Amino acid sequence: MTPSTPPEAIFSWPLRIYWEDTDAGGIVFYANYLKFFERGRTEWLRSLGIGQQHLRETTGGMFVVSETTVKYHRPARLDDELIVTAALREAGRASLTIAQTLRPKEFLPSGAPLTLCEGTIRIGWVDAASLKPARIPRQILETLGCSPQPEA
Amino acid sequence: MTPSTPPEAIFSWPLRIYWEDTDAGGIVFYANYLKFFERGRTEWLRSLGIGQQHLRETTGGMFVVSETTVKYHRPARLDDELIVTAALREAGRASLTIAQTLRPKEFLPSGAPLTLCEGTIRIGWVDAASLKPARIPRQILETLGCSPQPEA
Amino acid sequence: MTPSTPPEAIFSWPLRIYWEDTDAGGIVFYANYLKFFERGRTEWLRSLGIGQQHLRETTGGMFVVSETTVKYHRPARLDDELIVTAALREAGRASLTIAQTLRPKEFLPSGAPLTLCEGTIRIGWVDAASLKPARIPRQILETLGCSPQPEA
Amino acid sequence: MTPSTPPEAIFSWPLRIYWEDTDAGGIVFYANYLKFFERGRTEWLRSLGIGQQHLRETTGGMFVVSETTVKYHRPARLDDELIVTAALREAGRASLTIAQTLRPKEFLPSGAPLTLCEGTIRIGWVDAASLKPARIPRQILETLGCSPQPEA
Repeated sequence: MTPSTPPEAIFSWPLRIYWEDTDAGGIVFYANYLKFFERGRTEWLRSLGIGQQHLRETTGGMFVVSETTVKYHRPARLDDELIVTAALREAGRASLTIAQTLRPKEFLPSGAPLTLCEGTIRIGWVDAASLKPARIPRQILETLGCSPQPEA
Repeated sequence: MTPSTPPEAIFSWPLRIYWEDTDAGGIVFYANYLKFFERGRTEWLRSLGIGQQHLRETTGGMFVVSETTVKYHRPARLDDELIVTAALREAGRASLTIAQTLRPKEFLPSGAPLTLCEGTIRIGWVDAASLKPARIPRQILETLGCSPQPEA
Repeated sequence: MTPSTPPEAIFSWPLRIYWEDTDAGGIVFYANYLKFFERGRTEWLRSLGIGQQHLRETTGGMFVVSETTVKYHRPARLDDELIVTAALREAGRASLTIAQTLRPKEFLPSGAPLTLCEGTIRIGWVDAASLKPARIPRQILETLGCSPQPEA
Repeated sequence: MTPSTPPEAIFSWPLRIYWEDTDAGGIVFYANYLKFFERGRTEWLRSLGIGQQHLRETTGGMFVVSETTVKYHRPARLDDELIVTAALREAGRASLTIAQTLRPKEFLPSGAPLTLCEGTIRIGWVDAASLKPARIPRQILETLGCSPQPEA
C-alpha cells in the first residue's frame, strides 16, 4: 500500500551527540544510531498527535520493531549536531515500514547533504501483554493518511 | 539492623568490558559502572534464590534504587576482565543498603587488590503499579538472614 | 573556594524521555539519570564557550568523573519532558563539584517545583593519554569566574 | 571469497538479560540486540587470538560496522539466558561479513532451536585516526582461514 502522504513529507528532528553515545573508537557506537532512529520515529508520531504511552493505555497495544536494515556511511562524533529523519514508506494492516536517515545539521560548503547513516525500520503492532501481532488501530492509519489494505 | 550474614560474605561476579561500555575518552562511561553494580546485585539475589521477575509476578512489587554514592578511583578499559561485588550492609523494612565494588579479575603483582570503583546503593521495595514504598516481602528478608525491624 | 557566580546562576537544559531510557519496571533505568546529568554539564560548559572536544585537541586534557552522589525521589517515565540543571558548587585546581537536578518541565498545579532526582558530581581534569590528574586549564577556571586556589 | 572454515564452525557465547537491556515495553530494547551481537563478534575474535585493543595499538587500525540487517522474531526478556552466535560468511580485503543469531540457552521441549533474532553484520577495517578504509591485517585473514582476494 502506498501512503497518501507525498514523498517530500519527511519529518526532521535535531539531536546532539553526547559522551554516552560514543565508544573507545572515538565515534558513535553502532547500536546507538538505532536509538536516534527511534527518537525520530517517536517525534514523528508525536507530531501527528500519536502518543505511544497514551495509545498503550487506551488500546493495550504497542509497536515493536520486526526488522532493521542500516547502512553506516560516515561516523558521527562527540558534539556533532545532527538531523534524524523519518518518512513512511509502506503501511499494512499490522506493520509500518519507515525510511530513516541521519545527517549533519549544517550542510556542507558544497551545499550537498551528507548522509551519515540510513536505514529502513519495520515496526509491527502487537498486544502489549501477549506480544502477539494485531491490527494497527484505525486512528493511527487514518492519521498517517492510509486506507488499510491487506498485508502483502 | 545488622544482617546476620558475616562481613566476609561478599558476593562476586565476573564481567567483561565491551565496546558498548566505553566512551570517546577511551574508558568506561561513568554511568555504566551503575549497570555493572546492578548486574552484581541481581546475580547476588539470584544466588540466594531470589528472582526479581518471579517476585514481581507473585508479589506485585519490585526494588527501585533510591540513593547511590559512587567513588571512581581508576577507569576500566576495553577488554578488561573485572569482578563486581555486592554485600548487604543494612536491611530495613522497606529498603536495603548494599556495598559494591569493581576490581580487576587478576590481582596485581603485589598481590594487593585494586579497587576501580566502589559505591553504596540503597534500594527500596515498591508496589510495581503505584511505585509507592512497601514492606520488603518476608521471604526476601529471611533469605538475607534479617529479622525485620523498624526503619531507622 | 567559592565561585564568584551567584547561587541563582543555575543552568537549565530540556530533555525528553525515550524508550531507550526506560526499563522493564516501566520507569527510567537508574544509571540513565547520570546520562542526563552529563548532558546538562556538557551544555552548561558549552553555554560558557567551553567545548570539550576542542579542549582535548588543544590541551590534551579532559574531565573524568571522580565521585557521584545521587538521590532518586520520583521516577521519570516514557515521554516525560524534563529539565536538567547544573550549578557550580566548588572549584579547585584539579576538580570541580557540580550540583545537578532533574525536574519536570511543567510545574505542578500548586506551582511547586518537583525534584525527581538530584545529585552532586565531582569531575577532575586529567591528561587524556595517561589519565593522571592535572591542573584545570586557566581558561576554564576564568570562564567559570574562579580564581584558582589550592585544593582543600 | 569463501572462508575455508566449514559452515558448521559457529561460535557461541552465553549472555544474560539484565534490567539495563530492557525497556518500558517489558522486553529488550531493539538497539541492544546489536550490543549482544558485538559481544559475540568480540568473543569470537578473542577465541581466535585476535584482540582488538592489541591490534589497534600494533596496527593503528580497527573494525567499524558498515552495514547491518536484523530480523527480530521474538523478544527477549529480563533474566533470560541466551546464546549469541557468530559465523564468518564472507571475507574480503577490507571487510568481513558475519552471520549472527540470538537464541535461548535452553532448547524448547520439542528440541527445536528457537531463534529470537538474527542478523548479518558487515565490518570494515579502517585506520583508527583517519577512519579511512584499509586492508585487513594479514594476520587476521590468515587466522580466519582466508586467502585474501580482491573485494567483489
